[in-house]
Amino acid sequence: MARQQRALRTRQALITAAATVFDRDGFSMASLTAISSLAQVSNGALHFHFVNKAALADAVEQAAAQRLESIVTAHEGAAGNCLQLLVNTSHDLARRLAADVVLRAGFELGRNRVRGADQALHHQWHAWVGAALERAAGEGVLAEVAPETVTSSVVAATTGFEVLGTRDPQWLSHATVTRFWQLLLPRLAAASVLGDLAAGGSRSR
Amino acid sequence: MARQQRALRTRQALITAAATVFDRDGFSMASLTAISSLAQVSNGALHFHFVNKAALADAVEQAAAQRLESIVTAHEGAAGNCLQLLVNTSHDLARRLAADVVLRAGFELGRNRVRGADQALHHQWHAWVGAALERAAGEGVLAEVAPETVTSSVVAATTGFEVLGTRDPQWLSHATVTRFWQLLLPRLAAASVLGDLAAGGSRSR
Repeated sequence: MARQQRALRTRQALITAAATVFDRDGFSMASLTAISSLAQVSNGALHFHFVNKAALADAVEQAAAQRLESIVTAHEGAAGNCLQLLVNTSHDLARRLAADVVLRAGFELGRNRVRGADQALHHQWHAWVGAALERAAGEGVLAEVAPETVTSSVVAATTGFEVLGTRDPQWLSHATVTRFWQLLLPRLAAASVLGDLAAGGSRSR
Repeated sequence: MARQQRALRTRQALITAAATVFDRDGFSMASLTAISSLAQVSNGALHFHFVNKAALADAVEQAAAQRLESIVTAHEGAAGNCLQLLVNTSHDLARRLAADVVLRAGFELGRNRVRGADQALHHQWHAWVGAALERAAGEGVLAEVAPETVTSSVVAATTGFEVLGTRDPQWLSHATVTRFWQLLLPRLAAASVLGDLAAGGSRSR
């Protein structure tokens, strides 16, 4: 294996290990020794890649932002309309939050006061939800509700699922997210499309 | 002032100061010196009342639980029905979260992994919302939706307001909470009461 490839793998292993330890112990109490040990690299190798714990946290948050970006782009074009796109994407986000410690740690690190974090992933998600609902309005699939009214409620609920899901995965289950959309869709969707929308998410076409 | 009264005041001052420092710096980074200094008491006095930082955090969480209990009981009997009661109480909770650092810190401390916290305030709120919606169903003011379906969505959204509101008070504003209920009430309320419900909260009778 070329040296560059090996360095990249070590870096990835450190990011995953850091996310795991941040997720378990919190950023403040996370120890660099626990992280290097979990990644099975030396302390020296850790410090070659990351100058300190803050740099590691930045890298976890950036990796999580890339994963969130890949989630919100993955469903584009396959959902039929932007309301179904929002439903499908929220299901995928919940599923990935339950399974992917880097994504979960990225959201949580963004709320960490000690880091002076700016909730980067939250803002990224908020902006995407707002844009999806504006597009749904443009498509004529939104009932007579203002997109911005809906945005804050959807962002608040999905944030609740994310935060509560860090302690109890039931909050990120398909059933919980489906119930939310079963409740909301009849208020959001134009009558002409309501019957076609799947609160549990639709398969890609 | 009698010695007992003085001791009680010192204890209260320490709880408020601890909540302020936890809210600002997080539990892990909060220093006992910062807390005693803010409370204007000596380190010795702090240790007379609280054996360590964990004991202070427990006291903040207990004080917050009492405040939450007083919020959920304050509106009983004045709302007409239990759906309006839920709306009124959620507005009061949001307003108090924005204004009361002890309540805010109590919710956040409940999520703290380092403390091995069990989300006591979240569970208290969740149980109350569930019971209020069951009572609304019993009163016949709920539309044809299962109370437990509604409970998880309401708890998720209010948790989102609480968490996001620690960084941006706009999430706890009367306008944001009103928009949520404007969106949800037409799905929740039986047709016979919908016109009487105030998404912005009703005045006590």
